[in-house]
Amino acid sequence: MKNEQIVLAQRPEGLPGDETFRYEDTEIKKPDNDEVLIESVYISVDPYMRGRMNDTKSYSKPFEIDEPLNGHVVGKIVESNHENFSEGDVVTGGLPWKKFNTVSSDAVNKVPSTEVPLHLYLSTLGMPGHTAYGGLLEIGKPEEGETVVVSAASGAVGSVVGQIAKIKGAKVVGIAGGDEKVNYLTETLGFDEGIDYKKDNFSEKLAEAVPDGIDVYFENVGGPISDEVFNHLNTFARVPVCGAISSYNSKEDNGPRVQQKLIKSQALMQGFLVAQFQDNAKNASEQLAKWVQEGKIKSEVTIAEGFDQLPEAFRNLFTGDNFGKQVVKVSNSLD
Amino acid sequence: MKNEQIVLAQRPEGLPGDETFRYEDTEIKKPDNDEVLIESVYISVDPYMRGRMNDTKSYSKPFEIDEPLNGHVVGKIVESNHENFSEGDVVTGGLPWKKFNTVSSDAVNKVPSTEVPLHLYLSTLGMPGHTAYGGLLEIGKPEEGETVVVSAASGAVGSVVGQIAKIKGAKVVGIAGGDEKVNYLTETLGFDEGIDYKKDNFSEKLAEAVPDGIDVYFENVGGPISDEVFNHLNTFARVPVCGAISSYNSKEDNGPRVQQKLIKSQALMQGFLVAQFQDNAKNASEQLAKWVQEGKIKSEVTIAEGFDQLPEAFRNLFTGDNFGKQVVKVSNSLD
Repeated sequence: MKNEQIVLAQRPEGLPGDETFRYEDTEIKKPDNDEVLIESVYISVDPYMRGRMNDTKSYSKPFEIDEPLNGHVVGKIVESNHENFSEGDVVTGGLPWKKFNTVSSDAVNKVPSTEVPLHLYLSTLGMPGHTAYGGLLEIGKPEEGETVVVSAASGAVGSVVGQIAKIKGAKVVGIAGGDEKVNYLTETLGFDEGIDYKKDNFSEKLAEAVPDGIDVYFENVGGPISDEVFNHLNTFARVPVCGAISSYNSKEDNGPRVQQKLIKSQALMQGFLVAQFQDNAKNASEQLAKWVQEGKIKSEVTIAEGFDQLPEAFRNLFTGDNFGKQVVKVSNSLD
Repeated sequence: MKNEQIVLAQRPEGLPGDETFRYEDTEIKKPDNDEVLIESVYISVDPYMRGRMNDTKSYSKPFEIDEPLNGHVVGKIVESNHENFSEGDVVTGGLPWKKFNTVSSDAVNKVPSTEVPLHLYLSTLGMPGHTAYGGLLEIGKPEEGETVVVSAASGAVGSVVGQIAKIKGAKVVGIAGGDEKVNYLTETLGFDEGIDYKKDNFSEKLAEAVPDGIDVYFENVGGPISDEVFNHLNTFARVPVCGAISSYNSKEDNGPRVQQKLIKSQALMQGFLVAQFQDNAKNASEQLAKWVQEGKIKSEVTIAEGFDQLPEAFRNLFTGDNFGKQVVKVSNSLD
């Protein structure tokens, strides 16, 4: 039976171009004992994947040349050789960029409910939601009345960070690019302020938006935007460092050193990965699902249609052309 | 009765020159009720004072123009109008750069013992020792077998950091400038390795010294030395940020941004001031005194002689011409 995959053709320099990816026809492997055959329905593209395209030691091992890329997927069980799964079950897991994957049954989990839009398991109810929840609550620890600033604020992680911070009673300032995104922060998500980093007056607007300084800065972007934010840290500020997307495609990433600022404000910066919060993942899942159900956490998604749209959708993460969570729909099997 | 003081004549740019300071003759004020008259014996010069010479909001307020500078002093009570102090008592406190100070009795504390060299109350048993103790144990939290790196390692803070880390069973690598200081680290203080940042092969030597990576980096210097250290952080590394002395006299302080490195290693950087550990100060004092008594913490001091040597002694902190703790002896009254 016919299958398709996208492999890493060569390691990119800067923004991954078309030469980075290669489409291939391949076979569907018949599942062995304890294996399941899954049809990919929604495939997630996430900024951290850019790091895995480099051949450098990091927290997750590099993608291999000539092997399929790999990311979070919502899929449908087509055939199951394990008692825990039946044909038609909806599952999530980290899977190769293939239309069909045959994997060990422990590589995926059934979704807790199919009453929500299924792509939410790639955003608010998936890895980005857990990233926001753990990073903000376990490292940022916002208190009522404090000022929380989040960058890439309309994105999959940032939008959840800001809404949880509002639930916790903080004043929330979001940084995003362009009028549409900035308006979305205040009008739809309920942030107190939205600031456009693309405008010349970014620095002044930021200063105006945080008259009492910044207690928590949830770092998603790095680069010059964050350099500016660091000038406003309050005493004992906390900076969960989730991402530095503005620098992922750069070879040079120089800016003001942070040491003197951290001393002056006795501030904490902590890099983290969602995996470190796994002991609390069940609580986080339940709480996030409850907030979604109650309408307290809203989310936006950009859905590209078609397996061949994966590379372009991935690039959009860095050019800012997506809105909210970017996913690719590769099958209509769950419509 | 004749008194002398040194005031801030103008705010320095870069390394403070002679024009920064002005000597003045002044009077000795007769102590009122509850006041004490103190003769300065040892006056401390410390890197953090450079920040107070700038007119910028920081954790401690700027020194004022035409007013005496101010720092830690070991002194002798000359006259007391408070029952807690008697003539001849040895006290410490933060006091103006004057030969004699008349202050409220609660501005100073009696030293717990006069059986140790009194200048130790400005180093291991004073602010630098408490800085090392709190920063290393409450933020760095070294565990047995881990690798601890400390910069400015032969200095008042760094030397204590490294020795406490050894007591806790860590492997300790110190960074200092010049053969004499580097040899002192391994031969006198018992560090496992000493590395000379002034040598061309610093980067290679550092890599060789930390084959298992770095679990704790106690940051005293900032700048390019630390940029190099950050390349070796282990997963869940801790970086107590105590100082950035290499940058205190610079207007520009640019280098590689740390965000991506912190994410990759899920590392923590935390700026701190000794004041935040004050709840534990009594324990720290007792423990440090015990270690000094047992010979487990050794220390080196550079003593300049004469009140007029204060500016030059202060400058030596930045040029690296001092060895260990730099103090100025301004009186023989306690010999």
